[in-house]
Amino acid sequence: MANDAAKKLAGEHAATYVEDGMMVGLGTGSTAFFAIQALGERVANGLNIQGVATSKDTEVLAQKLHIPLLALEDVPYLDMALDGADEVDEQGQLIKGGGGALLREKLVASAAKKFIVIVDASKEVKQLGAFPLPVEIVPFAWEKTAQKIADLDCHPVQRQRAGKPFITDNGNYIVDCHCEKIEHPAELHQQLKLLTGVVETGLFIDMASVCVTSDGQTTRVRDFA
Amino acid sequence: MANDAAKKLAGEHAATYVEDGMMVGLGTGSTAFFAIQALGERVANGLNIQGVATSKDTEVLAQKLHIPLLALEDVPYLDMALDGADEVDEQGQLIKGGGGALLREKLVASAAKKFIVIVDASKEVKQLGAFPLPVEIVPFAWEKTAQKIADLDCHPVQRQRAGKPFITDNGNYIVDCHCEKIEHPAELHQQLKLLTGVVETGLFIDMASVCVTSDGQTTRVRDFA
Repeated sequence: MANDAAKKLAGEHAATYVEDGMMVGLGTGSTAFFAIQALGERVANGLNIQGVATSKDTEVLAQKLHIPLLALEDVPYLDMALDGADEVDEQGQLIKGGGGALLREKLVASAAKKFIVIVDASKEVKQLGAFPLPVEIVPFAWEKTAQKIADLDCHPVQRQRAGKPFITDNGNYIVDCHCEKIEHPAELHQQLKLLTGVVETGLFIDMASVCVTSDGQTTRVRDFA
Repeated sequence: MANDAAKKLAGEHAATYVEDGMMVGLGTGSTAFFAIQALGERVANGLNIQGVATSKDTEVLAQKLHIPLLALEDVPYLDMALDGADEVDEQGQLIKGGGGALLREKLVASAAKKFIVIVDASKEVKQLGAFPLPVEIVPFAWEKTAQKIADLDCHPVQRQRAGKPFITDNGNYIVDCHCEKIEHPAELHQQLKLLTGVVETGLFIDMASVCVTSDGQTTRVRDFA
């Protein structure tokens, strides 16, 4: 798959940013997967790092690759975090959470001195919003929270798996918001986050330091720090 | 106990606001207890209401009193909610969450057309903050979230029960923030709620419609609607 080649190239390039001795946040999803694979190879060849996983899936992957893991609470900060995104706009603002790990990903990214975003070229957009924005909400009376989100014109749809609500690693629900076009990402994030019942949104505002993009043949690096 | 007499008088007065046919949010804690008791007596005497509980404890109490219960998600709105508070200032702003049910209490109160706050006179303050402000946070890497709260000069202390973290009905932790004086409650609520890892704060801003206060002998009603 051409897409996979792009994800692999971007992931492998991003993995070259990691230096010996670093504490590194390990993202979740199909693009982060390739970066973590590449890091696993470097670890097998002697690279000395410690990882912090953003999800249970990533934890399993890192263990398989013998990347030493720490809990986020046990490190004062991270030198770097590597993760994919569902959309990146021209200002480096992101939509994340397609994989459902947005809260842990945001906690890990916000603990990192440098946050490297890794995407294939199809994730680059002029304006965020074509990808449905994931918002993590409390299960208790979730329809009331969804209604408040709908009042912001965000068209929330409860994410399901096999006919049941999808449950995050934190025991919450996700609604995917079909916004179409997000004119003001920072403002929308604030409006949503301030709602009672909303735990976190998939809008990552002013967090990306670098974005590594590949179309499967070339790799482009954008600096947002 | 003089305090109990005051709570009882305030609770019983607040229960008189409830009218036949209403859908009523039922609060949590020692003052709401007396209001729910009084409602239970009225239900035994023929009052026809439906309640929505703000906690598992309140659910058990209402069931014992034969108050019919609904889930919040099953009602479009509530006519009224009755609940206690840990502090009420002169503008009707509240600190709640001493009992640990702040999130459900806030969801219930925000679904109500009228929110009746019930306190004994010791809860009335000129300025909020002597009572430690409860903030509900995600367990994952909670120390990182607590650090961000500490950076706002809020002195968070993890709430514990029997040497273990206190767990809310939503599976989260609570930190009690020793602010001493909260100069700008609305702004502080926003700053805290916007932090990644914070689920909800115990500051109830512009939510109280009426506050019923008693010192055990007289009852005072303040209108904030």
